[in-house]
Amino acid sequence: MNNRLQSFISENVPKIDAEMHKLIQKENPTPQLKESMIYSVNAGGKRIRPLLVLAVLEDFMKTSKDALKVACAVELIHTYSLIHDDLPCMDDDDYRRGKLTNHKVFGEATAVLAGDALQTLAFTILASLEEVDSSKAIRLVGLLASASGAKGMVGGQILDMEGEKVSLTLEQLEEVHLHKTGALLSFCIEAGAVLANATELETCQLREYSKNIGLAFQIKDDILDITSTTELLGKPVNSDTASQKSTYPSLLGLDGAKQQLQKYHENALESLSFLDKEGSLLELFADYIVQRDI
Amino acid sequence: MNNRLQSFISENVPKIDAEMHKLIQKENPTPQLKESMIYSVNAGGKRIRPLLVLAVLEDFMKTSKDALKVACAVELIHTYSLIHDDLPCMDDDDYRRGKLTNHKVFGEATAVLAGDALQTLAFTILASLEEVDSSKAIRLVGLLASASGAKGMVGGQILDMEGEKVSLTLEQLEEVHLHKTGALLSFCIEAGAVLANATELETCQLREYSKNIGLAFQIKDDILDITSTTELLGKPVNSDTASQKSTYPSLLGLDGAKQQLQKYHENALESLSFLDKEGSLLELFADYIVQRDI
Repeated sequence: MNNRLQSFISENVPKIDAEMHKLIQKENPTPQLKESMIYSVNAGGKRIRPLLVLAVLEDFMKTSKDALKVACAVELIHTYSLIHDDLPCMDDDDYRRGKLTNHKVFGEATAVLAGDALQTLAFTILASLEEVDSSKAIRLVGLLASASGAKGMVGGQILDMEGEKVSLTLEQLEEVHLHKTGALLSFCIEAGAVLANATELETCQLREYSKNIGLAFQIKDDILDITSTTELLGKPVNSDTASQKSTYPSLLGLDGAKQQLQKYHENALESLSFLDKEGSLLELFADYIVQRDI
Repeated sequence: MNNRLQSFISENVPKIDAEMHKLIQKENPTPQLKESMIYSVNAGGKRIRPLLVLAVLEDFMKTSKDALKVACAVELIHTYSLIHDDLPCMDDDDYRRGKLTNHKVFGEATAVLAGDALQTLAFTILASLEEVDSSKAIRLVGLLASASGAKGMVGGQILDMEGEKVSLTLEQLEEVHLHKTGALLSFCIEAGAVLANATELETCQLREYSKNIGLAFQIKDDILDITSTTELLGKPVNSDTASQKSTYPSLLGLDGAKQQLQKYHENALESLSFLDKEGSLLELFADYIVQRDI
């Protein structure tokens, strides 16, 4: 990984983790609920979403007292969705990132409620920002709700469930990913733009960037599922082939999928040309998403 | 039921129902998700929460274009909580108000996601109000999130689950109800106060009112579980005795519970004295909550 990106990540991930803890503590849940909420927040992950919020501000050379909170809000939405996704009635996963899933540790009822409470907490956070004015705060609420709900992430999960039963076209597959993972990634970029006072034109170009890195992220996941090893990836490989799920490689072949990934990568970089600097964090993130091996 | 209250309800429930449909349609969910969301919204109920929002405005002789939307937002939160509550891992109910529960019709996975999407939609609605300024809108977001999450309704559900295993004191039982049902009822009253531009003192007195009607509502439910019949109530009676759950009658005896109900009723009416008029809608609601036989 690029050094600048590496040091940006090393510097910010501990801040994000500490802030998420603080925000949950402040909510003062009963002990069992708190333990369950914190367990899944602690389960790690790359923290790509909150890092993207912060990266936009850095690339715009802006700071905002509220950026870390907004970054945490979106990561809490992501965390809630993973808890609910892992439930027996959904993907029925016992492990995530090598750790027992929430419901395996706390029981299903608490897992459902911890997910519910994490979703709500994200909106509590956006309602308590200190620096941005109310009109920006309410815009962030609208953007996050739109990215998370039936129009965004949850809509994508339903499309994904329905898609498991049938063969999808490439267009339908993109539709699933644009909703399921893309909407929340787009929120991160757009929230960064709001906090950085980006112009409408800049915001429009950043939206194009986020759409392309979202699709690149997913196609790379699909490729790694075929080309990586279980040891390296920390989760079973060839799971998509086993479940006969539509993926980019199943639709385009492995080489076709790699070409498509390349195209999304180029589009993402092109949409950043307005930043007028090489080596922006957003560019480095796009490179990382494409080149990563886990 | 009092005539004025009856006509207020008959006039407003169809408006609330129509607006909820419109708001879900506008979200444009995929067909299966939409059907599941609308199914539970259609499952009826007394619509007490949205009616209370509108009643505050009526008693303050104010109108607001946004009142109906805020009223729907809180009913959608209530609806999502019922869907999740009914899941096999929670209360495992097959029927609610004589209709099959959401997961019995659409499957558990869709039920979880429909609940999630209804929660999010409530915040989408508050982010798209037309008349109130952003500072009020963000205040409403904060109040609804606080009432719904770990500090409010979800926290109460966890306390309730934990309470099922042990005998509670009267204080602990109140704690459960103040969170589980009281927080959302208080939101309704306070949201009405925000929309009606109530003063701080008036809001403070309205909070006292909502706390007392919330507890009255619950104690009346406990009493009806003993004194009513399954036919009249539309759900099994004596369920609390069978499950050995702590209730007001189990802690205070039936007569003691009735006295306590009387006390909450009187407190609620007293806190309305600032309105300086007899027969306010809020007074009629308090009477109805205490006198209802279903």
